[in-house]
Amino acid sequence: MNWTQILGITAGLLTALSMLPQLIKTLKEKKAEDVSLKMLVVLLLGITLWIAYGFVREDFPIIVTNSFSFFLNITMIYLRKKYKHGDPATEKT
Amino acid sequence: MNWTQILGITAGLLTALSMLPQLIKTLKEKKAEDVSLKMLVVLLLGITLWIAYGFVREDFPIIVTNSFSFFLNITMIYLRKKYKHGDPATEKT
Repeated sequence: MNWTQILGITAGLLTALSMLPQLIKTLKEKKAEDVSLKMLVVLLLGITLWIAYGFVREDFPIIVTNSFSFFLNITMIYLRKKYKHGDPATEKT
Repeated sequence: MNWTQILGITAGLLTALSMLPQLIKTLKEKKAEDVSLKMLVVLLLGITLWIAYGFVREDFPIIVTNSFSFFLNITMIYLRKKYKHGDPATEKT
């Protein structure tokens, strides 16, 4: 692996990992009403096209890191749907 | 511009625009307490490295679209700081 690939993978890991705090925050607070579902869906589409672009350009860092982003994003969409109106079990009465 | 570049720019525009609904939602509701600041900062760092990677690879779509993402992300960080605890002017009493 050369320095260019290391730079690309670091960049991709950071943009992928940027989803993680939101994911953890949502898991912890069991609410995500302020998180835009539209954002997550547009992002998923963009990530999918980046993976396609990576294959066309034979760009290893783009393919690998966006596949990871894809996985995190799908998870976040699931949580957003689950906790849209907060978790009824932890709701303040 | 060839098809590969169009694919890359479309991918980049979508991942950049994925920030827009969150930005509009925050502007409209004047609250962003569920939006993770850590996420925004990690993302900004990742975007910066993507721009560097784009220059090294001489990859035009990566440079252009990530520069746009950079601008949107900076704006979102500003709004997140401004509306962290909701806008006092619209606070329910």
